[in-house]
Amino acid sequence: MTRKILVLPGDGIGPEITAQAGRVLAACQARGLDIEVEEAPVGGAAYDAEGHPLPDVTLAKARAADAVLLGAVGGPKWDKLEDIAKRPEKGLLGLRKELGLFGNLRPALLYPQLAEASTLKPEVVSGLDIMIVRELTGGIYFGQPRGIEERDGQRVGYNTYVYSEAEIERIGRVAFEMARKRGGKLCSVDKANVLEVTMLWREVMERLAAEYPDVELSHMYVDNAAMQLVRAPKQFDVVVTGNMFGDILSDAAAMLTGSIGMLPSASLNESGQGMYEPCHGSAPDIAGQNVANPLATILSVAMMLRYSLGEAELAERIEAAVGRVLDDGLRTADIASEGCRTVSTTEMGDAVLAAF
Amino acid sequence: MTRKILVLPGDGIGPEITAQAGRVLAACQARGLDIEVEEAPVGGAAYDAEGHPLPDVTLAKARAADAVLLGAVGGPKWDKLEDIAKRPEKGLLGLRKELGLFGNLRPALLYPQLAEASTLKPEVVSGLDIMIVRELTGGIYFGQPRGIEERDGQRVGYNTYVYSEAEIERIGRVAFEMARKRGGKLCSVDKANVLEVTMLWREVMERLAAEYPDVELSHMYVDNAAMQLVRAPKQFDVVVTGNMFGDILSDAAAMLTGSIGMLPSASLNESGQGMYEPCHGSAPDIAGQNVANPLATILSVAMMLRYSLGEAELAERIEAAVGRVLDDGLRTADIASEGCRTVSTTEMGDAVLAAF
Ligand SMILES: CC(C)[C@H](C(=O)O)[C@@H](O)C(=O)O
Ligand SMILES: CC(C)[C@H](C(=O)O)[C@@H](O)C(=O)O
Repeated sequence: MTRKILVLPGDGIGPEITAQAGRVLAACQARGLDIEVEEAPVGGAAYDAEGHPLPDVTLAKARAADAVLLGAVGGPKWDKLEDIAKRPEKGLLGLRKELGLFGNLRPALLYPQLAEASTLKPEVVSGLDIMIVRELTGGIYFGQPRGIEERDGQRVGYNTYVYSEAEIERIGRVAFEMARKRGGKLCSVDKANVLEVTMLWREVMERLAAEYPDVELSHMYVDNAAMQLVRAPKQFDVVVTGNMFGDILSDAAAMLTGSIGMLPSASLNESGQGMYEPCHGSAPDIAGQNVANPLATILSVAMMLRYSLGEAELAERIEAAVGRVLDDGLRTADIASEGCRTVSTTEMGDAVLAAF
Repeated sequence: MTRKILVLPGDGIGPEITAQAGRVLAACQARGLDIEVEEAPVGGAAYDAEGHPLPDVTLAKARAADAVLLGAVGGPKWDKLEDIAKRPEKGLLGLRKELGLFGNLRPALLYPQLAEASTLKPEVVSGLDIMIVRELTGGIYFGQPRGIEERDGQRVGYNTYVYSEAEIERIGRVAFEMARKRGGKLCSVDKANVLEVTMLWREVMERLAAEYPDVELSHMYVDNAAMQLVRAPKQFDVVVTGNMFGDILSDAAAMLTGSIGMLPSASLNESGQGMYEPCHGSAPDIAGQNVANPLATILSVAMMLRYSLGEAELAERIEAAVGRVLDDGLRTADIASEGCRTVSTTEMGDAVLAAF
């Protein structure tokens, strides 16, 4: 059965990095993986071409695909768009919501070869391996009511942070299962000393814990979690939290590694269909220069193989190839280091393919 | 004119650290500062004694005071209190709201003597001096409606993130004034690519910028801000943000210094009345052992002298005394370091008084 992969290059460096990931997908095909790869526009590029950041055709193709590979969206060119619904980010948020991709997996993994790139002391981050499980289709990102309106003669902006028990339970299960497969530790992050919605969050996590006696559940307030990530990040194994806190904490955790250009992510729905993308953004300042780091996108392909296509072995081969290339001292500019060879986006792609 | 200071020791290490700060206040009196110092219960201690974390008498005394010095509130003993309105944190939130303390100043300052305590590389944090201005009486902390209720057969938790133009403008002015007095740079943190309430936030900051041509205003999304604090914290001078983001970012920023036991904070209302407290919590695990670090509380007294009592010179003397004690190699356990002498809470107080 041929599986369908949809590639959405997006904006900025998106097209360059997905091009390298596309070469890796082709190499998998050459090794017998039965896939069909198609491309479609999203984000600012789609707005420019078709007047909407998530064109109907793109959405239809995404629904029909077994997995989606996204580059990145956004850029200053579209930041001042009056019609907010047309901004590139809305393409991304629309995909998440429409495909029901509630389970966002964001690993923060330190590659031993890149330990120096971290701004933290080596002993604090060496061996760092955190998996952040972020709820992605609910919370304050999508809560209603929302808007800006006039009340008593002045404008007021408002959003709603809301979760139902079912939403919390669903992401909780993803996190408990993940903890079970990893180090057996799960930290749920909330602000249950202030926010009612996260009191419910905590209660549901507590209830689920009874079903996962092999997983050690702890709770942490979000402010303390931000602090602990800086103080002693290796205390964490799996972290589960809502959409907004997950956005903040996963970026902080990613930056602990010093090489956000290395970090992939997966966003899954209930049927295992997934969207895969690098953790970094569209980096418009270096777009089109063939200097961007394609490894996070290539590693996103590995995640896709593992989580949506059931091809763990191929996933490991890709990860091993990336490791070998780093061992050989190849670095793109973002992770450049003395004694290593700085290479372009395409050269990095060449090297991974050669090591694959 | 005698000024009134209300000391609220609170829970955990609160009584021990405010006791040392009280000695510093007494030393100021001895040097001619005309103040009257009183104490009252708050938090878990107040709940235990009077059944409420913010007794009427305490609130009345706080209203009547020119400045309030708070130790810390909270602890596991009260975490499971069924009646949420009676939890220690509600005492703190109630004080903020009732006194209108909307302007929270949280410096993240690295003491050169303690540079080693940071988990970040010295070159990343040496000379770090960020002032986070956090809105403290609005946003999702106080937004209505809020609660947990049943909808369509399942429970749903919800909170409201809301700001009016007037609220944003008010905290914006505090931040612009602060930037003007410091390095002239202000970074406003929001999530304007997703949340309407922060689109309004950004718009109001933009509008205010026209009145402060000497201040350079920039905007940053909260996820990026969390990342940049880890990557290159020295890029920041003054940061202004809402209640929730400020809670998270100020804790992360504080931890960059590696010595949260050193960081004071101020919470001000429109008339300059203020509440002063250490950034750290009540540390119930070390309460009553005479090992807690009293310096953040003592430095909170310095902030009180500067911001509420107009006694900048005395404030500087206290800060200088703390610097001298650190130079002399005295450290409490939390900042213990090889070659330095580890001292108790009271010994640290003795040393500051001797250097004052
Ligand atoms: C681009 C933006 C809407 C998005 C988010 O906030 O979720 C991004 O920051 C991310 O984390 O994927
Ligand atoms: C104790 C808690 C309610 C409080 C807050 O969230 O504001 C604390 O974390 C703080 O930052 O002062």
